[in-house]
This record gives sequence, C-alpha cells and structure tokens, in this order.
Amino acid sequence: MVGTTGKIKVGIVGYGTIGKRVADAVDMQPDMELIGITARSYNFRIEVANKKGWPIYATEDADLEHLQKNGIRVKGDIHTLIRNADIIVDGTPGNVGVEMKKKYYEPAKIKAIFQGGEAAKMAQCSFNADANFEDACGKDYVRVVSCNTTGMGRLLKAVADKWKIKKVHATLVRRAVDPVDVKKGPVNAIVPSLKVPSHHGPDVNTIIPDIEVITLAVIVPTTLMHVHCLEIELDGKPPTTEEVVQQLDRTHRIFMLRGETGVTSTAEIMELVKDLHHQRGDVVDNCIWQKGLSVKGQNLFLFQAIHQESIVVPENIDCIRAMCTDMSKEESMKLTDRILGIKIKER
Amino acid sequence: MVGTTGKIKVGIVGYGTIGKRVADAVDMQPDMELIGITARSYNFRIEVANKKGWPIYATEDADLEHLQKNGIRVKGDIHTLIRNADIIVDGTPGNVGVEMKKKYYEPAKIKAIFQGGEAAKMAQCSFNADANFEDACGKDYVRVVSCNTTGMGRLLKAVADKWKIKKVHATLVRRAVDPVDVKKGPVNAIVPSLKVPSHHGPDVNTIIPDIEVITLAVIVPTTLMHVHCLEIELDGKPPTTEEVVQQLDRTHRIFMLRGETGVTSTAEIMELVKDLHHQRGDVVDNCIWQKGLSVKGQNLFLFQAIHQESIVVPENIDCIRAMCTDMSKEESMKLTDRILGIKIKER
Repeated sequence: MVGTTGKIKVGIVGYGTIGKRVADAVDMQPDMELIGITARSYNFRIEVANKKGWPIYATEDADLEHLQKNGIRVKGDIHTLIRNADIIVDGTPGNVGVEMKKKYYEPAKIKAIFQGGEAAKMAQCSFNADANFEDACGKDYVRVVSCNTTGMGRLLKAVADKWKIKKVHATLVRRAVDPVDVKKGPVNAIVPSLKVPSHHGPDVNTIIPDIEVITLAVIVPTTLMHVHCLEIELDGKPPTTEEVVQQLDRTHRIFMLRGETGVTSTAEIMELVKDLHHQRGDVVDNCIWQKGLSVKGQNLFLFQAIHQESIVVPENIDCIRAMCTDMSKEESMKLTDRILGIKIKER
Repeated sequence: MVGTTGKIKVGIVGYGTIGKRVADAVDMQPDMELIGITARSYNFRIEVANKKGWPIYATEDADLEHLQKNGIRVKGDIHTLIRNADIIVDGTPGNVGVEMKKKYYEPAKIKAIFQGGEAAKMAQCSFNADANFEDACGKDYVRVVSCNTTGMGRLLKAVADKWKIKKVHATLVRRAVDPVDVKKGPVNAIVPSLKVPSHHGPDVNTIIPDIEVITLAVIVPTTLMHVHCLEIELDGKPPTTEEVVQQLDRTHRIFMLRGETGVTSTAEIMELVKDLHHQRGDVVDNCIWQKGLSVKGQNLFLFQAIHQESIVVPENIDCIRAMCTDMSKEESMKLTDRILGIKIKER
C-alpha cells in the first residue's frame, strides 16, 4: 500500500471538527503524507488549510466560483484525491460516511476510516487503539468509535487488564454542542436521552465485547467536554484506590488530575491545556479527577472528562497504521503519542 | 398548640426562595394562619410581602431605617413573632438554622421546621411526607430534607411500597444555581462533586433507612431543575414497565410526562407549568419522563426532573400538621395537594 515516498498517503474527506484535527496529526507523522483535503465552499477552515499549503480538492457539489473568488486554488476533484491516496480518513457528518463508502470508496477500491457517527455495521470492525488495534489489521473499512465510546473503551480496557469487571453503571453528562455550533442548544435546560440504555453501552461492546455496560445519558448546556460518572462493579478481591490510580496513571492516553492542581471542572481542564500551549487547546487524553476516584467495597467510582473534539485524533492515526502497515499496536501508539505530545504530564 | 382561631399560627423566619413559597402555601391552608415573616433589609421580596399585607418583623440585625424609608411598616421584632407563633418555619440559609435554633427557638420553647441545608443531626428527625410522616408527630424540631432528597424519597417510597429494591444507582445532574442567583456559575462547565458517594444517598437514608442508595453528582450550567438518572435494581419477580407507570402515576406528587406532549427537557416542563398558570411557574411534583422509564431484566430505569425551588413546599405544610395536630398523613397530604392544586394532571 505504501507509495514511493515510503510514506502512507492519506487523504481527508470532510474537513470539519475531526477532519481538520486528523489532517494536522497526519501532517506531523514521520511515516505519513497528507496528500490533500476536500472543500465544498469557502470558509475559515479552508482558508487556514490553504495558508498551510495543503492541496485542496473539490467535492462534486462544490461551489468552485466561491472558492476561487476567495483565493483558494483547487487542485482537482475528489476522485483525483481518492485515486492518489493509500487511505481516506472520512470526517463527513454522521451517516454520510456510509453513502461516501458506496459512492466513492468501494468503486475506487480505496481503504477508508469512518467516524463514530456511522452505524457500527457499515464497517468491517470498530476501532479503539488500546482495546482492539489488531482487529483493524489488513481491513479495508474501519470505524473509529465516537468520543464517548473512545473514552469509555480506554478506561475499561485499562481496568479490565488488571481486574475482573462484573458490571459497569455509567451516566454520561454530554456537552450540548461543540463551541463553534452557534445555532444550537440547549442554552438553559437538561435534556435526558430517553432511549435506555443509551447507545453508548452497546457501542463500547463493539470494541470490548465481553463487559456489561449500562449507560444513561443527559445533554447539558455546556460546550467544552463530556463528563462520565462511573460505578464499576468488580469481581474477586478488589484493588486499593492507590492501585487503581497507579494502573490508570501508566495507561496510554489517560491523565490523572491531581487534587492539588485546583482543577475542579471541565473549564479548568480547558484552561490548563491552553496554558500548556496544546494545539487548538485540545486534550486527547481521558482526564480523570484523582480526588473523585475511590474503591468502596467491590465498586470503583470515578469521574472522567472527555474532550469531544479531539479525543479520537490519536485513534485515527493508529487506525491508519493498523490498516496500512505491519507496525505493532505498542509501536504505533508510542509513536503517535510522542509525535502528538501526549500525554499532558509528559509534555 | 392551636390558638383561639382554631388555626395553627405559623411564623416564617428567613424569607428567601423557600420561605416566601412556604408563606404563600401556609396562607392558603384552611387550618393555618400566617402570622408574619421576618425582614432584614428592604428588597423586592419584602415589597411583595408588604403588598400582600403580611405582618413583617425585623431580625435583630435589620436595617430599620432602610425598611421604613421604603415604606415597610415593621410590626415588631423576631422575638415577638416567635412569641405569637405555634410553630416557626425556618427558611434561613444552610447551617444558619442550627444557630437560630440555639439562639431563638430553644430558649422560647417554640417548635421549628428546618430545611435540607441543615445537618440531619441538628433536628429530632428528618421528614418526607409520604416516606415518614409519623416520625415527625409530636416532635419539636424537624428537618424537611432537601429538594434532591425529597425527589428521591418520594420515588423510592412509591417503588418500595410495591416491589423489593435491592440497590439504587443514581446520578444527580444538578442545576448550577437558582434563576435569581445572578452572581454565581458555572456558566459553561461541568463540575463533578468529587465526594463519592455524594451526600444525597446517605440523606435519603434519613427518611428511608433500609435501601442502599449510591449517588454520584455533577453540577451543570442550568438554573431550571435538577435531573436524576436512576437505575433501580429490584429483587424477586420484576414488574412490567406498565405496572411501574401505573404505580407512580397514582402516587402523591409524582407526575408522569407522557411522550406525546413533546416535553423533552426541563425547559419544556417549566414552560408547561407556566402555561398552566402555576403560581410562580412552580412545579412541586417529581416529573418523570414516561418514555424514558423502562424495566429491563431486574432493573428499573428512569429520569426525573426536580424543581429545586418549590418541591419541598408541600412537605413543609405536611410537616407543620404532623408536628402540631393529630391529622393523619393521608388526610394532610390530600388537603395540601387539594389546596395547592397538586398535581399537574388534576388541575
């Protein structure tokens, strides 16, 4: 699959919240080449991509005149991008990916990665780097699970690696919209997701099949991060609180927020990573409040914050390697983490 | 205890969010007489109380000049109010009630009701009308539990009356502040309560001692209502979803929001009760989304919304009767509900 440069040629179709972040991350990898992104019309995201000198390809329904009038030089159409790529990362909105697969990727016989907004069954497997890297090896169509599922998957994998989980009770307190979505709400209300259990529990089972996960979800008026409230029932001799802290602290992409730092909310996490000069103010780690983590009897309690805009970025990078190379999970995750500067404490 | 009018003479000390609502509710009861409220300084709440013609008594630290300059005629001091009352409803802020008890109520040998912001041990018992009305009979100092505990207590009592509860897992998604608290937040963040379990579970056990209740809590940027996300583990043969709906639907102060009404959030509940011309837009019932209620295996799942400003009002009224009369629980709750126009569907 890998071209003459020795690098994996990656095209990004759909340049929104996820697409633009994956593009940056691909561009930083030593073994990948960002060969282009797609544009439909001119906007501030395309302006920035253009300033970066990235090749821009027009979707079939693109407003070419609007793009050209605003100084965007279009290099070709989406078919050209797909033809020149080894793999496409599809960042189109939920349930559009499945259409893109039928219309473009399957006819072109091109590998593609989809995002968590797609139904699990549209891909050959779902993906979380730590939980099931190997499942994606050699596959053509893989779905990186959503932000909430990624966060749950990382955590539960780390716990299940050391102790036996009997059952997970989780309430997902979800941000209303991303910060840039100015037109949507709620602004002052709590909106329960009345489908019970919410889709998140079954979605975790697409990457970790054998753990019972019961999830309830509510949407609340904030834009910054999700917060998961977890009660994990353990089987057998329970660990100490300190043992759990140690296990999570040494896990990829999990960051323990120590009480002494004064980080009591999602707002302070966002401020912390901006102070640390994270690109875009992103935090791709699960952020767990150490002060709120405790083992009581057979139950492990904890709260974790999940940055919905960026948490899946490293998983997309690892998924590219799983699908296109022979690199091992451990090698890929380490490389991704080193290049992206994960995790907070190692920066 | 009951005076020559044959009515229970009730004084309100602390005229804030709860105090002003209890004053209105007392004023409406056929067997109670509102003999006065306290004021410390002039503000819009005191202005409205004055317009209603209610006797206003000055606290010891009151700004009398400020009150008089704004047209408030003070009838006497707090000692006079206490001397003339059969019972005081204390609506002072959390942990102030315990000081008021020592300084005023005990020396005057006057009965008093405190609110949920006080520690349980400061009173002879904690109170929820349906759960433990009889515990308050003949007592001098009783604490009406907080809004969240009242909501949990009503619900769990109704379920436990029919089925055996093994364990309750609840996440309380709490409103940030009341609508009038303009100076506090959070405005855009989720703040987990890192004490695990939160104080709510143990507080439920002050009114229903024998059910294991595990609560986690987060604070979110909304002012309208709390939302409880509940998973109730049941022992023995589980009921059908329909049987639970029926049981809750016929329970005092529990309102089932049918899916057809299009009420998907706390904002729409608030709008509904305003459309119904509820006083102040209050809703003193637990509001349960019927569409989100289901029994799966041994587990009962549901979401309920709790109006923090008003839910304890009927409980304060019933508590007055429990402490001052021989009226039965059933008779008192029925009378309160009829006078206050509870519940929504019966209006």
